[in-house]
Amino acid sequence: MGQDGVHHAEFSEFASGDREAALQQLVDSYVALASDQDNWVCNLANAASLLWHAYRSLPLDVNWAGFYVADGKNANTLILGPFQGKVACQIIKYGHGVCGTAASLQETQLVPDVNAFPGHIACDGETKSEIVIPIIGKNKKVVGVIDIDCLTYDGFSGVDVKYLEQLASKIAETCEFP
Amino acid sequence: MGQDGVHHAEFSEFASGDREAALQQLVDSYVALASDQDNWVCNLANAASLLWHAYRSLPLDVNWAGFYVADGKNANTLILGPFQGKVACQIIKYGHGVCGTAASLQETQLVPDVNAFPGHIACDGETKSEIVIPIIGKNKKVVGVIDIDCLTYDGFSGVDVKYLEQLASKIAETCEFP
Repeated sequence: MGQDGVHHAEFSEFASGDREAALQQLVDSYVALASDQDNWVCNLANAASLLWHAYRSLPLDVNWAGFYVADGKNANTLILGPFQGKVACQIIKYGHGVCGTAASLQETQLVPDVNAFPGHIACDGETKSEIVIPIIGKNKKVVGVIDIDCLTYDGFSGVDVKYLEQLASKIAETCEFP
Repeated sequence: MGQDGVHHAEFSEFASGDREAALQQLVDSYVALASDQDNWVCNLANAASLLWHAYRSLPLDVNWAGFYVADGKNANTLILGPFQGKVACQIIKYGHGVCGTAASLQETQLVPDVNAFPGHIACDGETKSEIVIPIIGKNKKVVGVIDIDCLTYDGFSGVDVKYLEQLASKIAETCEFP
């Protein structure tokens, strides 16, 4: 239990069905949780839980929410980080698929139909749309990406880009990456 | 997509409602996924997904499944690792709560009623029963614990201990911990 008698699980409660309110709460909750913690695994594990519960509360049929991070052992390679959802691909090369494209271009990828994305890597054949936001570290290099998959087409829009880019900035500020 | 045209997400499909069959499949799937991967974050992230989907398939009302790991920065301290479920406590001292007790004693803790466990740390007030298995590294020190929470009393038994201790051994063998 937290210092104030609040269970940590209560951070996963998103009462509103309003997307902007839920995403603002998501960013605020992440900042609160990371206020005295810089361990990247710990912070991304809780961030994945916040992402999952925020989107499922809308409701939106998100089937995967989490992170790929820069692989310290292999250049230009993303490796699976904390997430919520079904088992996922372990390695993604920069420039490959939606995650690898976001990492190599250092640009958010908003993909209304993953099957129309050149070189899409399907960890789950049921995914229809996806959003990937690069997390840019202090040295201007990619330290990881936020990746969210949805079972319906057009799952994400500019509203998601706005708040998830805020989350990516907060993650870069608060986490000590290897 | 995997080398054999199989989506990674298919590892999360547990057809059987039989506990032993599901837990054997869980261990086998973990071994397959970790066969050419020693990154502990990647492997524990997928292992948390396997645990979640295996138990939910029984069905059992598991509300949290994942890992705490030895904190490299602070002695006798566990820090949150990959998991599936609601936002969780970030730090647990050895000897405190079910996870900290499993870590300090290096013994599995099978807890039919968490409220009867002395010093139980409630990340989620709704949890009723819990099982925690220590993961013992090559140097005989605890590298982490497997932690699973359930919304009903008596969620776990000796069958779970048997297979989850196998999983803990496989994790210790396959992962390079910091």
